[in-house]
Amino acid sequence: MIKEITAKQLHSARFIEEKIAELRDAVGSGTAINALSGGVDSSTVTMLGHRALGDRLKTVFIENGLMRDGEPKRVARLFAKLGVRVEIVDARKEFFRALEGITDPEEKREAITQTFYKKVFGRIVKRSRSRHLLQGTILTDVDETVAGIKRQHNVFEQLGIDTQAAFGYRILEPLIQLRKDGVRKVGRALGLPAEVFERIPFPGPALAARVIGEATPERIECVRKATTIVERILAGTGAFQYLAILHDDHVTGIRGGKREFGRQIEVRCWESLDARKATPTRLPFDVLEALAREITRKVPGVVSVTYNVASKPPSTIEAV
Amino acid sequence: MIKEITAKQLHSARFIEEKIAELRDAVGSGTAINALSGGVDSSTVTMLGHRALGDRLKTVFIENGLMRDGEPKRVARLFAKLGVRVEIVDARKEFFRALEGITDPEEKREAITQTFYKKVFGRIVKRSRSRHLLQGTILTDVDETVAGIKRQHNVFEQLGIDTQAAFGYRILEPLIQLRKDGVRKVGRALGLPAEVFERIPFPGPALAARVIGEATPERIECVRKATTIVERILAGTGAFQYLAILHDDHVTGIRGGKREFGRQIEVRCWESLDARKATPTRLPFDVLEALAREITRKVPGVVSVTYNVASKPPSTIEAV
Repeated sequence: MIKEITAKQLHSARFIEEKIAELRDAVGSGTAINALSGGVDSSTVTMLGHRALGDRLKTVFIENGLMRDGEPKRVARLFAKLGVRVEIVDARKEFFRALEGITDPEEKREAITQTFYKKVFGRIVKRSRSRHLLQGTILTDVDETVAGIKRQHNVFEQLGIDTQAAFGYRILEPLIQLRKDGVRKVGRALGLPAEVFERIPFPGPALAARVIGEATPERIECVRKATTIVERILAGTGAFQYLAILHDDHVTGIRGGKREFGRQIEVRCWESLDARKATPTRLPFDVLEALAREITRKVPGVVSVTYNVASKPPSTIEAV
Repeated sequence: MIKEITAKQLHSARFIEEKIAELRDAVGSGTAINALSGGVDSSTVTMLGHRALGDRLKTVFIENGLMRDGEPKRVARLFAKLGVRVEIVDARKEFFRALEGITDPEEKREAITQTFYKKVFGRIVKRSRSRHLLQGTILTDVDETVAGIKRQHNVFEQLGIDTQAAFGYRILEPLIQLRKDGVRKVGRALGLPAEVFERIPFPGPALAARVIGEATPERIECVRKATTIVERILAGTGAFQYLAILHDDHVTGIRGGKREFGRQIEVRCWESLDARKATPTRLPFDVLEALAREITRKVPGVVSVTYNVASKPPSTIEAV
């Protein structure tokens, strides 16, 4: 049973001090390793780890080819400013190979998880000879694992490593007593810039969750371009979440007087408090038409743009 | 070279008198046959033919299973009020058999055309032993055939009948000098009710053009239900055209707390003068949300509803 620390109870400076001491104690004179995604949890745990261990924490950013435009460099630059060196590991080929021919959403998710843990990160961990793995698990992840909504949050089990005892690996989860709001408080106290907290939520399988059908490099590039446009145009809306989805269906279009059987991008923009219920943002038609104009002009092959008008439930926030 | 009669030049009463005389002259003591779709052109030519020939014109309505809800009965009832007997021919099985396994839009169109002319109507014509076929061809059809936008407007060529001389069939096209506005004028003068002219445009391949992917009876039924809702809710908008499209893509939804991989309906509503250019109607979000609510509630399996926000070009009015 994990003892929750609510954001209200949380005294950030004291919490940070305690966790630094615990991490130093746990790692001793050894080394630790962690994977940074750029999200709030992994960014906070990275800062905490580096405060505690300095260069003895090796932080890797795995470039899976499914990120938003310029994401690996953006994250590396952001952490460089904070004095943290992030090693970018280019694993694009491995991820795309694993995704080849897969159209089922669950199978896509599984292929990405397996490639991440069993292949790419697994290899990095083994090669690093680190005995400690730092992870940004929060209390909500534990709850969701218990409830069966999420898979194992324990990276060792993901790695297929049977027992800690057998290999001597040790997993360190300094944020496990906190929820999102608590993590944000700690992250801010650790000096993480506003940009880390202001980014809208992004799904685990990244842009692979934003294409219906096969996630080929070319289709991912298409939805990546659309995502950049959607995030720029909708940045000022204050909406809970906004996204672009590439459909697998093709629709008739016309370009230069000729029929073109082209692609369709669906835009979703949500109003929500906690993601459990959500309604589409009532965007002005000027904005909706600007989205359509720019997407059909700048994203190759796109002839049609739609806007989601259904609520959650029965819709969900993401489509895949 | 066909001599155009503009709507402005057209004197309806005189035109009708002349065409009645011409039809009587052509058919003599024989019989004629025509296929009524319920559209303006075929409705007008049906009225004209019945004025000229009375019961010697046999009018059939071919139920292909791809029509809007209640369409065959609606058309038969409407013409019964005008004293015209319409024979409904149930050919649903033949059309669905022809559409089986076909997902390409052009092939779908072709399958419907071939089934209509070569099989169903061809058989009816032969059995009727009529020597005259009445057709609602208008000048725009001829132009579009010449320009290569449409196929042959000549039903005999569609039927694969080589020469008129060989079989003695004769095609009669009394509206061929008119354009749409002229036909409307004649139709009104012939006593066709407002309902015929007020219905929004509907594509040749009917609801088969409103499903992306295979047009199975079950998928057609799904888009038929959505079409009824869209036409009812958007009836008062004064828009140029509105339609529902069933996507082939499936998206994640949630119902009763459980994940449901469901269907998506796309709604399009257009402002346009002549269909060459069109922009999406700026519908209030109350209306958009009402559409989504009713479609997700009443159309089985639909968890997501989108609204088209792209203009034509590069979009087109229909998706298939």
